[in-house]
Order: sequence, then structure tokens, then C-alpha cells
Amino acid sequence: MQIQIDALLEYFLPQPSDVLLAVEALPMEDQHVLSDNLEVSGPSNLRVVNGLDQMGRRRWMEANGNVSISYRAVVEVTRAPVSLAGKFVPPRRELPAEVIPFLFPSRYCESDRLERYAMRRFSGAVGGDQVMMMAEWIHNNFDYVPGASTETTTATDSFLSRQGVCRDYAHVLISFCRAVGIPARMVSAYALGLQPPDFHAVVEVWLDGDWHLVDPARMSAPENLVRIAFGRDATDISFMTIFGMAELNNQWVSVSELAPPGS
Amino acid sequence: MQIQIDALLEYFLPQPSDVLLAVEALPMEDQHVLSDNLEVSGPSNLRVVNGLDQMGRRRWMEANGNVSISYRAVVEVTRAPVSLAGKFVPPRRELPAEVIPFLFPSRYCESDRLERYAMRRFSGAVGGDQVMMMAEWIHNNFDYVPGASTETTTATDSFLSRQGVCRDYAHVLISFCRAVGIPARMVSAYALGLQPPDFHAVVEVWLDGDWHLVDPARMSAPENLVRIAFGRDATDISFMTIFGMAELNNQWVSVSELAPPGS
Amino acid sequence: MQIQIDALLEYFLPQPSDVLLAVEALPMEDQHVLSDNLEVSGPSNLRVVNGLDQMGRRRWMEANGNVSISYRAVVEVTRAPVSLAGKFVPPRRELPAEVIPFLFPSRYCESDRLERYAMRRFSGAVGGDQVMMMAEWIHNNFDYVPGASTETTTATDSFLSRQGVCRDYAHVLISFCRAVGIPARMVSAYALGLQPPDFHAVVEVWLDGDWHLVDPARMSAPENLVRIAFGRDATDISFMTIFGMAELNNQWVSVSELAPPGS
Amino acid sequence: MQIQIDALLEYFLPQPSDVLLAVEALPMEDQHVLSDNLEVSGPSNLRVVNGLDQMGRRRWMEANGNVSISYRAVVEVTRAPVSLAGKFVPPRRELPAEVIPFLFPSRYCESDRLERYAMRRFSGAVGGDQVMMMAEWIHNNFDYVPGASTETTTATDSFLSRQGVCRDYAHVLISFCRAVGIPARMVSAYALGLQPPDFHAVVEVWLDGDWHLVDPARMSAPENLVRIAFGRDATDISFMTIFGMAELNNQWVSVSELAPPGS
Repeated sequence: MQIQIDALLEYFLPQPSDVLLAVEALPMEDQHVLSDNLEVSGPSNLRVVNGLDQMGRRRWMEANGNVSISYRAVVEVTRAPVSLAGKFVPPRRELPAEVIPFLFPSRYCESDRLERYAMRRFSGAVGGDQVMMMAEWIHNNFDYVPGASTETTTATDSFLSRQGVCRDYAHVLISFCRAVGIPARMVSAYALGLQPPDFHAVVEVWLDGDWHLVDPARMSAPENLVRIAFGRDATDISFMTIFGMAELNNQWVSVSELAPPGS
Repeated sequence: MQIQIDALLEYFLPQPSDVLLAVEALPMEDQHVLSDNLEVSGPSNLRVVNGLDQMGRRRWMEANGNVSISYRAVVEVTRAPVSLAGKFVPPRRELPAEVIPFLFPSRYCESDRLERYAMRRFSGAVGGDQVMMMAEWIHNNFDYVPGASTETTTATDSFLSRQGVCRDYAHVLISFCRAVGIPARMVSAYALGLQPPDFHAVVEVWLDGDWHLVDPARMSAPENLVRIAFGRDATDISFMTIFGMAELNNQWVSVSELAPPGS
Repeated sequence: MQIQIDALLEYFLPQPSDVLLAVEALPMEDQHVLSDNLEVSGPSNLRVVNGLDQMGRRRWMEANGNVSISYRAVVEVTRAPVSLAGKFVPPRRELPAEVIPFLFPSRYCESDRLERYAMRRFSGAVGGDQVMMMAEWIHNNFDYVPGASTETTTATDSFLSRQGVCRDYAHVLISFCRAVGIPARMVSAYALGLQPPDFHAVVEVWLDGDWHLVDPARMSAPENLVRIAFGRDATDISFMTIFGMAELNNQWVSVSELAPPGS
Repeated sequence: MQIQIDALLEYFLPQPSDVLLAVEALPMEDQHVLSDNLEVSGPSNLRVVNGLDQMGRRRWMEANGNVSISYRAVVEVTRAPVSLAGKFVPPRRELPAEVIPFLFPSRYCESDRLERYAMRRFSGAVGGDQVMMMAEWIHNNFDYVPGASTETTTATDSFLSRQGVCRDYAHVLISFCRAVGIPARMVSAYALGLQPPDFHAVVEVWLDGDWHLVDPARMSAPENLVRIAFGRDATDISFMTIFGMAELNNQWVSVSELAPPGS
């Protein structure tokens, strides 16, 4: 399936500031970037940050005044629907080096503080089934409430308030997973069919020796996602980290399926 | 200079638990591991974790009951004394990919919450001089008080209480650095001359295109340090992460200078 | 001096909710309520809460839909300008019963967490002079930034961020005072000359055997204040505590000096 | 029933400090203090604090060096077993002035943060039955773990960790009650039959127009309790508030039933 992405970010920066962008689709085995283009208008310079393939494609920009960033891409997604049922997680001592950081608590995923709860409440399953049980619990106990959280809301805050947006749902699921020994990381993505269209945040869990997508907010299907960046939590995957002040003027995302050629 | 390290960790684990060890000296350009040996007695198996060179050498272990871990090493440290004076940090937009994670806030280094303070208080210098000013401020305003902090104490907690141990001093300096745009990471180390001898935690700041050691607690000199592991904060560099319960029976570290041959 | 107060609160409550109002001027020795009237329009009933003279005059109301609350009063304020210089605080062990609660930490005034800082930083003075030193420090180190704090911001949050509004300035000064042994409480007030006009929050400190007003935000003079309610912190003095959801439609406060008769 | 109380507190204070004691049984309608005596040895002076009957009997003491405080009392408790079943709480707007502070969140009882959870989870009952449902939930979901909490642990901390001691159980129940509109306060007490004997912390809820004892830790029965002090949370009822440093040398409490005369 070919997915077309259009994103527009318009900000006003009252003074020259460094900006880190992470909006570009990530070339991966199950998502081929057929074409893409990132353009910036305004008094800005884009600079590619090389070598950060662990976290995604990043761009530094120095920006000032009114800045308009537009990104267009066509991505072929060949990912099959993902079922976590029956998938396996080994004991921690058999986990490879690269997933260890995703076992640890992080700023917004204080898995240590939720460990006793998660260990007890979700003891009835293991591996992928346990992830499904945890996602089901979140679905049943949380309300999706735009505006209910801020950029500093953590997983324990959300666990207490039982509400949030995709970011918060992801933080809670990640925390539960880490608490029971399943490596979990946060993923920013473009999601086909997301209502309303926006940048999306989902989770990847490490099972059967690989990362698998899961959306605890149940707003997207894994086969319809185009990954942008990875990280421990929202800190790492912000689509736009502005080191300075900024006002949002306009933000707009469109994700659509391209009709196959000849159709 | 050749430094000899002896470390002994004795714990009791009431039930089988996975343990992640990070106690081995890290082979690096300025610290050559001439010989080392990690031994475990008790019903345990050690397994090397390959590939985590970004964070240090790690070992997984499954442990149960009384466990005794001993590490011996001889390391040739060729690092010259480090002076940060005059060292340069570029604007954020010129930072390479690999240092970007060390600009972000982390669990124990909430640099965003200290940004306004750091930007204003330490505006009188830049680069290495600014790091020195910040370390001086910490030295003047903090008391070194063993027992004043716990494993969940954060940089803002320490900033409020004005006391702590090496871990807390490091968290505060790292947070200040990140707040003003200087990449900073936490380093666990063996330190020659540390009183009392123990595992030590110091800081590395990214200046003049490379990482440089600094000890905000002023308990060790960079040229006398043997690095063990790196990370965003204490989460990443714990010398022993036990996934389960444990009681400490004994912990002992000795670091001494080997007399040069023929002396 | 006679001060005329007009306040209007217009809210929409989507469902029937209990509302606690604390907007009425408090009859006290240094502020005589010559006349006042509280009116509510909309499907609401006002009920006086008797007996809460320790905290202020309170009204319960059951409200629903669009509610308009208007308060008008004329208050004769006979308070002389207050100077804290030279005022005395006894050792804690000589403090009377009624001020003890105002020595303790409270939700938004975590004086225990700021104790080490306050004890050291403000050791150069005692009593009223120490309060002046602390207020001066706040004035020099804080920026008054509307919107920089929320209703859950605490004194330690503000101490870290070095910004806030009158509420936050008051919380920090109260915390400092309690930390060094000076009873301090929070006061809501109408303030003549406040720009822009609004409900105001100031501090009272217990010195020379009585409570004395001080405005750490330096937006009002004690002799121009009409007290509404007292409490440990913002929790206790909210002018409108709504047990349910509400939208603010309009809020308006006017405080003016009545020309003396015959002038 | 006549209850005999013996309590001994031995502390070392390295420098002269003010100490606030709240260890004396409170004369009340359902607990008659037949005799009691508070003695202090060491270089100390006791001073009664008059007028704090809202919170309990308090004593100020200036203490230094080794201090030994002993309290002996005989109290006739005439309280019948308390059943909360069927007890009534009016809507908030009908609550009298004196209970309003016990509806508000406080330092250790952040009822606002637990409101959404409590409103939803405990919606199946009202009044006393709702308190019983909440206490039952705590009993089923918490482990009583001495050492699992500290003096700064809050109700939300305990809600996350699902463990604690009597103080923490009380904070959680109080928070739940306030969240659903039931005034609740914390009470320190001597408890007959408590194992191990110690100062105890329980809850009072305001139902049917009066305060009623409930022990969420299920370690004591209301008819066997001798109240010492009241307050919003642990801040207010500490049996010993030391303004300075101190080391505990010995602490010992004994509570026993006096045989009726002639038995």
C-alpha cells in the first residue's frame, strides 16, 4: 500500500532559535520511502544530522520570525497486520544489548513506580498476550480527552488521572511493559485514517526477537503506520524541539492512500 | 599511570533474579585495560551482553541466594589533566547526532525545569568556562551529605535541598549544562584517591568536539579516573541493576596506583 | 479611606454543581464593611456558611447553567502603612496555638523542602527584617509572568522556574517564612490600584504578636488592601471552588477609592 | 472500658531545638481522661499551648542533648463499636463551616488527583457504605509493609506503590473520601491491641452530622482507640515535631486494658 503524507508546520519565533525537526518518514524494511521532500521557507537553514539512525532522521534548523515547514512523502508500507497473541519475551538476562535501555524507567515512563501494580494486575499472561491484556486495561480505564495533559505529564500522572491523549496512552503502556520485563519504546508516526489527522504516537514492544507496533489508543492499525522516530519516551520523538520561544500559527497533517497505478 | 582496581559485591537475593552488572573498566583510547577478570561465586551464570559499547560493558547474570561478585583489573590511564578553560561549544544546530540525546532532559536531570535559572545565573561565561562557573556554584552552594538522597532523588530535588552525594552533584551539573546547550552525560568510574573508596559518579561535557571529564564533587581528578559506563543519568550507569529484591551484605572497592616496573 | 468594590463572575456550569464562594470583604478591626451585597442570578441558591470566621466568609451555592455572581461593597480601611522593619518573632516554643498551623508545610508551600536554602540564604536578619530580605530576594529573582503557572504549581515549582503570578510569589514567601520559623499565611484580597484589577493574593506574617500584610509581588500597598479570606495556601482561599466542571464566561473586578463626603 | 497508656520517647538533640509534642490523650465526650501525666527529664522545659483544641493538646518544649519524655494516662473509653453502614453524607452545599477544610486536598492527601479514579471506582455506594467500599478496596489492594514509605510519601505515591503503613492507608482513604465529597480527617491515637504497639494513625469521616472513626489498616477497632490529635493529614498530627536535628534512642508505647475494679 502506498501512503501519501503532507504535513505543514507554521510557527513564529520571536528570536533566532535552534530547532530540531523529526518529521521525515524513516526508511525501514517494512516502509519504503519512495519519495519525500522537506522544505522550509523563511530565514532558515536546514542541516541534516547524520548518524542518528537509532532515533530517526533529524534536521537542525536555525529559525527566526515566521517559519513554514512543509513535508511531502510517498511511502510504500508492506507491513502485515500485527497480532501480538502468542508472541514471546525471553527472561531479561537473555535480552540483547540494544534493547536494554528500553527496559529502564525514563522521564515520562516511570516504570519503577508502576512495577508493583503491573506485576500484580497483569500476572495472568506473558509476552504478547500480556501486552494485549495491558492495552485492554488501558482502553477500559482511560478516557481520551484532548487537553487533559501537558507536555510534562508523565505515565504516573496519567495512571492517576485515567485520561490523556495518544502520547499518554503510549507512556502508560510502555511503563507497564518495562515493569514486567518487556522492552518497550515510543514511536512517532503518520497514521492513515487517524481522526483528526495529526502526528501520532504509538508503542513498539520487543517480542519474538523484534519490535512490534501497538497503538494503545486504538486509533490506528499497525499496517497503516509510517514510523518517523523512536525513543525512550516523548522526550526523544518530539517532531519539533524548539530551543527558545515559539508560537504555533498553523499545523496540518494529511495522510491518504494512493490509488494503485491503473486503478 | 597504571591503576589497580579491586571490587567486591556481596548480595543476598531471596529468589532467582536477573541482574545487570556494569562494573568493568571500559577500554578506551585514554584508558587501556591491561588485564581484568570478573568472577562470580554462588549459583549464578554470567553472560556478556555484546554490542552495548555506547553505554559500557554489561553482563547479565541470573542470581539467587548469596552471590559474591569480584572484579580485578589493571588499567593504564594515559589521560592528561583536563582543563575546561577556553573550551568551545558550538550552537546546538551544529551538534552531531550522537550527542543530541545528551541535550535532552532525562529522568534524573530535568534540565528543562532548571533552564530559566541556569540561563540567567550562568550567563557570564560560555563553553568550558561556563561549565567551570556552574561547577563552582555547586561547590559553593552544596553540602556533601551521605544519606541525604535516595536512588530516586532528582536534580531538582537536589537543587532544592542543596545537598547530596556524587550522584546528585553530577545530576545537577548535567542539568545545568543541558539547560544552556552543552551536551552532558553521566559516567560511572573508579577513582584513584577517592575517600572513602567506592564506585564514583562524574560528568562528561562535550566541548571542542569531544567529551571531557569533570567531577563537580571535587573528589577526584580526571587523570585518575577509570570509566566504567556512560548514560543520560543514574538510570543508565548503575553498577548493579537487580530486577528483584536483594540485600547488601558487603561492598568494597579498592583503587591504587601500581608502582612502575623497576621502581 | 473608603474603598468601593465591584466584582462580577460569570460562569457556565454544564451540570448542577456545588460551588463555594469566598468573595466577600471580611469585617475586621482595620477594615469596616460599611455596606455590601452579594447577588446571584440564574438557577442558584445561596447559603451562608456560618462559623468559619477563621478562614473568611463563605457561601455555598448550588449552580447550574449560566450563573452570574455580583458583589458590591464599600469598606472603610483604617490600616496604616505597614513597615516590617524591626518587628520581632519569638522562638517557636513561645508561639501561641492559633499560629502553629501556619508554621507547618502545606500543599503549595513545601517549606520543609526549602528549609536548608532559606536558613542559609536569609541568615543575615531576623523577624520583620528577615521577611523584608526574603521579599527583596523574590523581587530580584522572579519574573511576573501571567500564564507561567497553573492552579497546581507549588512553591518549589516556582522556586525552580523563577516566575509566576501573585499566587506564586505569595507561596514562595510563605514557604521561606515558615522555613525560618515565622508563621505565615495566605490572604485573598481586593487591592486598590492593582493593575490589571483582579482578585489578589498576598501574605500575612506573624510578628510582634499580630498578623501583618506584605505583598511580595509589590503590586499593592497593605493600606490599600481589603482582606477576603485566610488560609494555609491557595487551597484555602480560592474565591470560587467549583465541585464540578465550569467554563469562565466573564470575570471582572473594580476597586476604587470613594471620594470623602463633601470633597 | 478503662485503658492505660504508657509511652516513652528518648531522643538525642545535638543542639537546642524547639519541639512540639502531641502525645496526650484528648478529653472528649467518648473518652474521659481519668488521669494523666507528662514528664520530661533532661535540660528541657515544657510549656502548654493553650487554645488549640481543634487539633489536640500540644506542648512546646525546648530540648537539648538527651531528652526523655514519658506519658502515662488512664482513659475511660465509652465509645460503642462504630458501623458506618447506612450513614449519610449531605451534598457539599449543606456541609457546615467547620468541616469544609477537610474537603480540600492537602499536602499528603491530594484528593484532586485521585478524584476521577474515586468517582468512577466507588460509584456503587454513598455515604458510610461508600467509605466501607473504599476501605475494602484499600484492604484488598495494599500490602502493609513497614519501611516502604517515608515521612514525605503522599497518598498518590501510596496509590501507585500499593503499599505502606497505617499513615499511608489513612492518607489514601482520606483522599478517596474527600474526592467524593465526604469530609475526612486524620487522627493520631493510642490503640488497644495494636501489634506491635506504637502510635497509630486512623481516619475520621463526617457522616450523619458527626465524625466517626475508621481504621483502613484494620489493625484496631474504633471502640479501642484513644484519640490524641486531629488534622488534615500527617503534617498536623505528628506526635513529635522537632525543629532541628534529632536521633531516636528509644521509643516505646504500651496500651492495656485496666481490669474493672473488683474483678
